[in-house]
Amino acid sequence: MSNWILTLSCTNRPGIVAAVTGRLAEAGGNITEAAQFDDPVTGSFFMRVAFALDGDIAVFRSAFEGLADEFGFEWTLNDAAQKRKVLLLVSKFDHCLGDLLYRMRLGELNMECVGVVSNHPSDVLNLTLHEGLPYYHFPITKDTKAQQEAQIKNVIEETGAELVVLARYMQILSDDFSAYLSGRCINIHHSFLPGFKGAKPYHQAFERGVKMIGATSHYVTGDLDEGPIIYQDVEQVSHADTPDDLVRKGRDIERRVLARAVRWHLEDRVLLNGSKTVVFSK
Amino acid sequence: MSNWILTLSCTNRPGIVAAVTGRLAEAGGNITEAAQFDDPVTGSFFMRVAFALDGDIAVFRSAFEGLADEFGFEWTLNDAAQKRKVLLLVSKFDHCLGDLLYRMRLGELNMECVGVVSNHPSDVLNLTLHEGLPYYHFPITKDTKAQQEAQIKNVIEETGAELVVLARYMQILSDDFSAYLSGRCINIHHSFLPGFKGAKPYHQAFERGVKMIGATSHYVTGDLDEGPIIYQDVEQVSHADTPDDLVRKGRDIERRVLARAVRWHLEDRVLLNGSKTVVFSK
Amino acid sequence: MSNWILTLSCTNRPGIVAAVTGRLAEAGGNITEAAQFDDPVTGSFFMRVAFALDGDIAVFRSAFEGLADEFGFEWTLNDAAQKRKVLLLVSKFDHCLGDLLYRMRLGELNMECVGVVSNHPSDVLNLTLHEGLPYYHFPITKDTKAQQEAQIKNVIEETGAELVVLARYMQILSDDFSAYLSGRCINIHHSFLPGFKGAKPYHQAFERGVKMIGATSHYVTGDLDEGPIIYQDVEQVSHADTPDDLVRKGRDIERRVLARAVRWHLEDRVLLNGSKTVVFSK
Amino acid sequence: MSNWILTLSCTNRPGIVAAVTGRLAEAGGNITEAAQFDDPVTGSFFMRVAFALDGDIAVFRSAFEGLADEFGFEWTLNDAAQKRKVLLLVSKFDHCLGDLLYRMRLGELNMECVGVVSNHPSDVLNLTLHEGLPYYHFPITKDTKAQQEAQIKNVIEETGAELVVLARYMQILSDDFSAYLSGRCINIHHSFLPGFKGAKPYHQAFERGVKMIGATSHYVTGDLDEGPIIYQDVEQVSHADTPDDLVRKGRDIERRVLARAVRWHLEDRVLLNGSKTVVFSK
Repeated sequence: MSNWILTLSCTNRPGIVAAVTGRLAEAGGNITEAAQFDDPVTGSFFMRVAFALDGDIAVFRSAFEGLADEFGFEWTLNDAAQKRKVLLLVSKFDHCLGDLLYRMRLGELNMECVGVVSNHPSDVLNLTLHEGLPYYHFPITKDTKAQQEAQIKNVIEETGAELVVLARYMQILSDDFSAYLSGRCINIHHSFLPGFKGAKPYHQAFERGVKMIGATSHYVTGDLDEGPIIYQDVEQVSHADTPDDLVRKGRDIERRVLARAVRWHLEDRVLLNGSKTVVFSK
Repeated sequence: MSNWILTLSCTNRPGIVAAVTGRLAEAGGNITEAAQFDDPVTGSFFMRVAFALDGDIAVFRSAFEGLADEFGFEWTLNDAAQKRKVLLLVSKFDHCLGDLLYRMRLGELNMECVGVVSNHPSDVLNLTLHEGLPYYHFPITKDTKAQQEAQIKNVIEETGAELVVLARYMQILSDDFSAYLSGRCINIHHSFLPGFKGAKPYHQAFERGVKMIGATSHYVTGDLDEGPIIYQDVEQVSHADTPDDLVRKGRDIERRVLARAVRWHLEDRVLLNGSKTVVFSK
Repeated sequence: MSNWILTLSCTNRPGIVAAVTGRLAEAGGNITEAAQFDDPVTGSFFMRVAFALDGDIAVFRSAFEGLADEFGFEWTLNDAAQKRKVLLLVSKFDHCLGDLLYRMRLGELNMECVGVVSNHPSDVLNLTLHEGLPYYHFPITKDTKAQQEAQIKNVIEETGAELVVLARYMQILSDDFSAYLSGRCINIHHSFLPGFKGAKPYHQAFERGVKMIGATSHYVTGDLDEGPIIYQDVEQVSHADTPDDLVRKGRDIERRVLARAVRWHLEDRVLLNGSKTVVFSK
Repeated sequence: MSNWILTLSCTNRPGIVAAVTGRLAEAGGNITEAAQFDDPVTGSFFMRVAFALDGDIAVFRSAFEGLADEFGFEWTLNDAAQKRKVLLLVSKFDHCLGDLLYRMRLGELNMECVGVVSNHPSDVLNLTLHEGLPYYHFPITKDTKAQQEAQIKNVIEETGAELVVLARYMQILSDDFSAYLSGRCINIHHSFLPGFKGAKPYHQAFERGVKMIGATSHYVTGDLDEGPIIYQDVEQVSHADTPDDLVRKGRDIERRVLARAVRWHLEDRVLLNGSKTVVFSK
């Protein structure tokens, strides 16, 4: 018995669910979790089906491909047991990195970390869980951005990383590199977007006197801070909180917001819908 | 074009979704929202499908009945536009009652209030939104509980109420009456069950020194405070909160917890699963 | 025995608390709640003291005035039992208005509503709790804004309203009127500021695909949507929520966010600190 | 300039704040944060004052001791810069341990970890941050509980640990050991007390079908699961969450609930009030 996750999207029309689940039933699949969404604005349809299969996936895959052509699906079909290869990027703040590595070790995240890339040497880190993982120290200056990004690209291609996570990587990616990573790179932004875009959001929040701060995980696109949002969360703050307090409280929000987005991505729960996401969370 | 909500549950086996959605596609239905749950513990399967239909529902209903026999479905099929008849019970605290009536007036709740029953006269109430609704004042004493419950039962049957809501109705129902209402009566309990069962939960919470209080909406069963839970929520409290503060904060929690449970019930989003619920919330 | 609330702010220097509480002890006051805040950025000091007094407040007031001169306090001293006069402004959406009136009736809010002002006739309202209160219907057009605001100003002055609440009053106030109301007018903005300023914030939130929506209560100043924030709260939303769902969920957030800000203001818990607030919440 | 934290409690009477802050002003102290609580039920008074001092603390301490005798204070006066010695106890689940050690390394927690005690060898742990710290492996069986607890007691006394944290230490302490640790030992209980006392609370929660799970940090007393509560938090769960999902979600709640309690304790923000706590959180 093997376990699979199918996702698909297409222009909506009657009969999609019946066709997909019919083909699945014929192939001997048993649905364990399913969710769908009909976007009334765009007329798009989105579906995720997790199923157990007592037989050869090739049989279903082949039958499904015909259907996909007929309906014009964009689709993925992944082995639920297959760990995804993930590359983690970090700068000096390592709370998100440490949190992801710890969750990976516990089996919370269905991933294999193929390496850590940083623009700083590993001795700036507070955590120790990265020991034993490949650590790529790629310094960067204004003048070497293109070369440094080429180095990262190289690591992605050599390791076969399917997902890149910007775990408080504090460099602004070039447009080219953003485009290259589009849809397979998750960033954590330390504000409740669209509030406080840009630099030092906690200091901006302090100046404005807001009573809540938050964090946002989103896919990277060419448009900085405008990528499709996956998850957000917040916490109450008060007049007595200094910028340092906001930074401290923010760390807790950031790590849980990023971890949740990464987990959902690794379980194929996040589908792109233009500049938004459809999240089939459990 | 009409809109329908189908719910079903049965013992799980492969092919259910394909069969149901296939029959629906043949009848010209277009799914607008669907959700399902396979309970790995009990082996039960639960499904809710909302669909738009350009045609006669009788055609689908007839086809579906065959399927229901084959798979052994427990099922409901309701016209989404049909307002459900609801009877509201209250004692002196009317914040939940007022909240439900206001939401009904705004169109948030797909219901028609067929009346308000209270063991107190209407002049104990603070709200005024009940004006124009039938108000049944049925006083109760230890000795008249059976007769009073018979009066309520009478109202339920004469009005055809499909749902009874205990909106802070402070009488303990008899076993017989609870059994009579089972599965079609929602209560709001003013604690975060299973903590603080029984009387005066906010005072119990104060005594214990908890740092959060909550409320629980659940279906009424014969076993007081043990009915299937639909929704719960909480709020932070502090050492400085008096029992009166807890009661005040609790009112806000109670009304939102009850309103959400009632809305979900009215949209056929809550299915019973033994002593638990499956909630297909949107 | 009477109960009083003292608030003060000044440039920080050692000995303020000792001087104030010393004077209070001499006058026979017993502190029941106290809070203070030293702003490390501006060097300002803020204090709120609630106390019970067995004696004549005039004795303390007189002693305190000397201190106030010496330290340069901005201060207020209010009888805790004295209900504050409040004028409520509303347009068509009346959920915040109804919520405030209901809480007032229950005694949650230490206020007397001196009237309701609207640019619409009262028959657009869903609630009924305003019955019995003066209702001022002041229609407004582009050309009559100045006159209409003069009408409202007139009501404020004739009723002696100490606080004006914009309970989803959907008109943009003129600069002059904003300045006139500065520090004594609370608005509810239906977004999590500083995100989604301006018109139709829920529709903006829907377009952006955020995963949380919120509301913000703030004092009115000349700078629209930039007034000192008193309280904010949020709720999770999902890809399946339509703009109408956001509006519905938003109503719940708005009414609790506004009610809390109004309650805190009425209990002298909110002190202005430049463009921010100090909130001594209990 | 040095920074100090004073806490005190006593039977309430007028003039306490004036006396304390007066003495502080005379000694040249400048209050940076202050909070107080008058318990209307017990008539007790609680106060916490953080202050900066340009001078010798011995002068203030001596003046204060006279006051403490006069008013009958229970009190503490601690150097804010002095790291507290903390002993951490753990069994196999190390998410709380790792979280505390990471926060310590970042400077979030004003503590020095004097050692880790476990009933298991260190190779059961997933984290690596404990490397370099004394690790005491004290196995335990039914028959050796007394000896094992004596070993722990020995470590406490030799290291001078002021606080013991049960970071998911899964052994039930004997009455004697609990009494010995009373008031200086914080436990994390993996349920929203008082719900689901005893063993396997997440499994109990799953059985009951609750819609929220939580965690509780509390001081250890002789009465298991009944110690004074410091902090609690919760998360939404659904019918689709398995017991394993609850355990996973619970880990996040546990570590933030424990970390917050420990931080507050280390900053002298938690005062005991009978079977409850007064928490002067910032």
